[in-house]
Amino acid sequence: MSLLHPDRLFPAEPSTRGLTRALFQSVESLPIVSPHGHTDPRWWGEDPAFADAAELFVIPDHYVVRMLVSQGVPFAALGIGSGAEPDRRTVWRTFAAHYHLFRGTPSRLWIDHALSEVFGIEARLSADTADAAFDAVGDCLSRPEFRPRALYDRFGISVIATTDGALDDLAQHRAARDSGWSGRVVPTYRPDAVTDPDFEGFAGNLDRLGEITGCDTGSWAGYLEAHRARRAFFATMGATATDHGHPTARTADLPEAQARALFDLVRTGRASAEEAETFRAQMLTEFARMSCEDGLVMQLHAGSLRNHSDAVFRAMGRDRGFDIPRRTGYVEELRPLLNAVGMDGRLRLVLFTLDESTYARELAPLAGAYPGLRLGPPWWFHDSFEGMRRFREAVTETAGFHNTAGFNDDTRALCSIPARHDVARRCDCAFLADLVVTHRLDEDEAFALAPLLAHDLARDTYKLGEDA
Amino acid sequence: MSLLHPDRLFPAEPSTRGLTRALFQSVESLPIVSPHGHTDPRWWGEDPAFADAAELFVIPDHYVVRMLVSQGVPFAALGIGSGAEPDRRTVWRTFAAHYHLFRGTPSRLWIDHALSEVFGIEARLSADTADAAFDAVGDCLSRPEFRPRALYDRFGISVIATTDGALDDLAQHRAARDSGWSGRVVPTYRPDAVTDPDFEGFAGNLDRLGEITGCDTGSWAGYLEAHRARRAFFATMGATATDHGHPTARTADLPEAQARALFDLVRTGRASAEEAETFRAQMLTEFARMSCEDGLVMQLHAGSLRNHSDAVFRAMGRDRGFDIPRRTGYVEELRPLLNAVGMDGRLRLVLFTLDESTYARELAPLAGAYPGLRLGPPWWFHDSFEGMRRFREAVTETAGFHNTAGFNDDTRALCSIPARHDVARRCDCAFLADLVVTHRLDEDEAFALAPLLAHDLARDTYKLGEDA
Amino acid sequence: MSLLHPDRLFPAEPSTRGLTRALFQSVESLPIVSPHGHTDPRWWGEDPAFADAAELFVIPDHYVVRMLVSQGVPFAALGIGSGAEPDRRTVWRTFAAHYHLFRGTPSRLWIDHALSEVFGIEARLSADTADAAFDAVGDCLSRPEFRPRALYDRFGISVIATTDGALDDLAQHRAARDSGWSGRVVPTYRPDAVTDPDFEGFAGNLDRLGEITGCDTGSWAGYLEAHRARRAFFATMGATATDHGHPTARTADLPEAQARALFDLVRTGRASAEEAETFRAQMLTEFARMSCEDGLVMQLHAGSLRNHSDAVFRAMGRDRGFDIPRRTGYVEELRPLLNAVGMDGRLRLVLFTLDESTYARELAPLAGAYPGLRLGPPWWFHDSFEGMRRFREAVTETAGFHNTAGFNDDTRALCSIPARHDVARRCDCAFLADLVVTHRLDEDEAFALAPLLAHDLARDTYKLGEDA
Repeated sequence: MSLLHPDRLFPAEPSTRGLTRALFQSVESLPIVSPHGHTDPRWWGEDPAFADAAELFVIPDHYVVRMLVSQGVPFAALGIGSGAEPDRRTVWRTFAAHYHLFRGTPSRLWIDHALSEVFGIEARLSADTADAAFDAVGDCLSRPEFRPRALYDRFGISVIATTDGALDDLAQHRAARDSGWSGRVVPTYRPDAVTDPDFEGFAGNLDRLGEITGCDTGSWAGYLEAHRARRAFFATMGATATDHGHPTARTADLPEAQARALFDLVRTGRASAEEAETFRAQMLTEFARMSCEDGLVMQLHAGSLRNHSDAVFRAMGRDRGFDIPRRTGYVEELRPLLNAVGMDGRLRLVLFTLDESTYARELAPLAGAYPGLRLGPPWWFHDSFEGMRRFREAVTETAGFHNTAGFNDDTRALCSIPARHDVARRCDCAFLADLVVTHRLDEDEAFALAPLLAHDLARDTYKLGEDA
Repeated sequence: MSLLHPDRLFPAEPSTRGLTRALFQSVESLPIVSPHGHTDPRWWGEDPAFADAAELFVIPDHYVVRMLVSQGVPFAALGIGSGAEPDRRTVWRTFAAHYHLFRGTPSRLWIDHALSEVFGIEARLSADTADAAFDAVGDCLSRPEFRPRALYDRFGISVIATTDGALDDLAQHRAARDSGWSGRVVPTYRPDAVTDPDFEGFAGNLDRLGEITGCDTGSWAGYLEAHRARRAFFATMGATATDHGHPTARTADLPEAQARALFDLVRTGRASAEEAETFRAQMLTEFARMSCEDGLVMQLHAGSLRNHSDAVFRAMGRDRGFDIPRRTGYVEELRPLLNAVGMDGRLRLVLFTLDESTYARELAPLAGAYPGLRLGPPWWFHDSFEGMRRFREAVTETAGFHNTAGFNDDTRALCSIPARHDVARRCDCAFLADLVVTHRLDEDEAFALAPLLAHDLARDTYKLGEDA
Repeated sequence: MSLLHPDRLFPAEPSTRGLTRALFQSVESLPIVSPHGHTDPRWWGEDPAFADAAELFVIPDHYVVRMLVSQGVPFAALGIGSGAEPDRRTVWRTFAAHYHLFRGTPSRLWIDHALSEVFGIEARLSADTADAAFDAVGDCLSRPEFRPRALYDRFGISVIATTDGALDDLAQHRAARDSGWSGRVVPTYRPDAVTDPDFEGFAGNLDRLGEITGCDTGSWAGYLEAHRARRAFFATMGATATDHGHPTARTADLPEAQARALFDLVRTGRASAEEAETFRAQMLTEFARMSCEDGLVMQLHAGSLRNHSDAVFRAMGRDRGFDIPRRTGYVEELRPLLNAVGMDGRLRLVLFTLDESTYARELAPLAGAYPGLRLGPPWWFHDSFEGMRRFREAVTETAGFHNTAGFNDDTRALCSIPARHDVARRCDCAFLADLVVTHRLDEDEAFALAPLLAHDLARDTYKLGEDA
């Protein structure tokens, strides 16, 4: 018995299933375009071996950690925080014994896919099979064909983007490029640490930005110039995009003197919460203008309340599964930015949301009108079978397919990349097949759209050029 | 090959499809009742010929224009605004060459339906077929049987409502009535221009309202009396309803002295945004009272942020596809109105929304309690296969079928009227069939409900009497 | 012909239906665990006969009343309020003549189920069958096997919780326990009347709380101590849970001195609306702390705007179908409480919502992270086929199954209890079957999950121990 059924995620109704299968076969082997994600640049620069199954599947995966914690498993038992269990096999056994908690979740699909396709494991994970799986994974990881670059090649990736701070020197990207390896790894400019007044160490980060660029980041004009310089540097290293993680989608377009005064205030660290929010809002519009100038595609990931639990943040730090979505508006919020550059043919802004109620109400209407907008794929908790279905059902009738941005895997879990693209391709093919069997689309059109959704839109949206 | 499959929009599962087909056959030929829409009264008063396919399908259709603009087609290439392409065939070719953008959208279904059913075209629209379609449509339009009144008859319309400003003299309605033509065209009282202090020319509109009615619109009492007079005039011309397009659903019920003072302020043009909103809110309650008195059905279309792009509004004017829905509340908002007249057996208020999250949470609970409320069909972006499905799934369990208002096509595109009713009837039959095959409803009940949803509820809700 | 089809609510697609049927058969006969509801304790303490069908199915059922009122049936015709129709058969006839209004609603399913399964009636209710049904029900009700305790036994209930005010002496619970009857009826501590400053008679209620407990409810410390005392008393009577009905989910965690001052203000009756809200918010955190201490499971039912119509409230009182849901937030709102005790392994907080847009966006992410949180089943208007489907589809991928609380019937309609559990079990089995046929879950896993959802989770979440 295999962990993976060949018809997984295909609709049960036979005629729809048959067409879904045919559509999927037409796109299954297309290269993976990964224009947004969080793989570790060191993997590409140094090509290190992974240590063990717990390091690969449990400890860094906040989807996995949060579910186990929610059912009473202590962080320490997962090898995290003070008193962390040091033995990786023990951590793995804890995970395996609780694997039933993931029934019905995308984590289950991704992990089963990776165990089966990457490591050749076909027994369902449980307390009973934990040791065998741990050993099988460990055995593989000691071999060169399981190092990151080899996996990149094996997965059929044609390009992968990392997400990198504004102060990053991109040394690992340089190392990857200089290594002679044929993979294409591009950085993404993510400047939150120097644009969000609430970010830890904001003032020091501004100073560092000045040092790196030689710009006077004590002045508004110099600060903007420093961003331009860093964006240009990222572009020379292959970047085609920037990314902006904001608590809300608010934008502003202040008169120059007000923006300057706000920057001066924010630099002092004495800005109120509202002033900090206005500064972030203003910066989104500034970045949109820069995008028009330098051609870097702008991404906005809005609506996560980070570190909801003070206790978890203090003890465990960021990215431990306690970032919670909240209600997010886009209509009034994006208006200042869109009034500034929304009709400028050079703008390319990809919008992401954690608030699905905005799909049909706000995002599809906006993307179906403004030429510069594209809708990013379902993000984070919604990057799943039901989430993808809701996305297509909610946005297609208003925005069509061409105003969507193709798939992002958005992951820091390397082995889940093929699984995530597999799920997305299956879901999109099922959606197209449903349109055909209900006679909303002709069959030849579905076969034309399937590679668009699986591959071409991502490449085109992010200006990634042709596959090598 | 036909553009239209006879089983379009029917569920794929064979037993459900079979029952859907039988239900649809029972309602397919019922007369079209169109109690809310935006056809041009001149069509009915003067019965002019349409010029060409671009005038009919592209230039005035903001669904079509917005999608093309969103993918980088300039307004001018669509024959709109400064530098507008003067050649209609060229405009049509641009549209046809981009017809793939509409895959999966209702516009595609409507246009295919009109091309096939009205103009006998069976080749899918594309750059290759553009000229043939343009010529075929043009050839038809030159013939008398493609003039508006002939199309009305051919479409099987039994009554159609237009939407008319409070200052309108309804001359075209009079002309239609006096022409001896048997069609029934009724006006709808839409007073936004004289109730919304933010409307262009509000003060002048008040003066004009006074002149027309002989009422003193400089006083609160006279202003209300003027509305009563105009409503009575509209009723003599056949109107059975009023319509109110508001940015929110806020209502108010101020003490008389406060309302009078607010009117005096608003007349000066110096009201704040909040005061203008309160005035609109108050007027909704006044209109609800008038509805109780004169029996005109009240419609509320709330929640659109009009003219989101300043640049598009300045260059192209209203209704160019840049009206964007926003989050809209009804529970606290309608409470003052409902406390005033919500339990009055004479009230009939039809509620529309662009915020689907309110279907199950707010609107169905309200309509399932207050005797005067009915839920309008899915509006605007949601007037589509998925939109209609979501509506029925979200509201039926709480509000049933009898608290819904039947279908509105709500269109200014004459040839899309049969297509829109066709889609609505198919969707509703599919929904009923699904209830039967899952044994939530008996088959005879589904056959009783199908004509209710297709025809009777619209006629009854809007007090339109029997078909001729 | 039977009112009930054996395959009701099962998906139409044959392979999915077959598996749903098998799953349902495996759980159909499991005991009913009813950890939250509103049955009248007098039924259990005194075991009285019900009077007639109108008393059983119409007059106290606000789902039924609201629908009839919404279609113009006066309250009085339903035996409610001034001028109430005194003849129960006449009330029943009115109901039966309007039974078609319930097509597509859960009330229809519940009532059909009760008429058929409890009273052996197989003719669809209508004006024609009204009298026969009234007589058949009446005939049954005169027999001992249709008294509450006999129905409890016949329905296969293993435990049922009532909802009881903080000032209640639980005499009926004592009577039931002392009667020698084997049924298990447990109270639930619902303190709204002594925690909500807007509750009618709040100040007097505080005094009464002091008298009952011997605590000084004039002081903050004494007031909290009084709650602890009452909770302990309820626990001795079998309670395992508390319940809190709040207009919002706001919580607060004020410094002790501020909380004390707020209590002193609230006691005077001079607190503002905002201060009353803050007091309720503070009390939720206090109750969460008490739950950690005494082990009572905490339930939060947030988001209903009670008594929307002033006129109905004045004339008919509470619970007449005019409570309307409204937009409800949980992320910022619950943060103070969760920062206080969210990571305390002893907390058990079950969250309910009337705002489905929070399922995927807020509630599943929260419950999928914090160990103390569980998601209650779809509440009120959403306790229905479509409502349950939306719930599972929206929360499972993020929160899994084990962070949900099992089913609650939450009803004051005794005869609907088996119907409601039947619907829930069928819906959950259909959801599981769909996961299997789309290969998101293995078949053996579905058979492991079905009894969990039907029975075990409710028992475990509410700490109800083993079935007798």
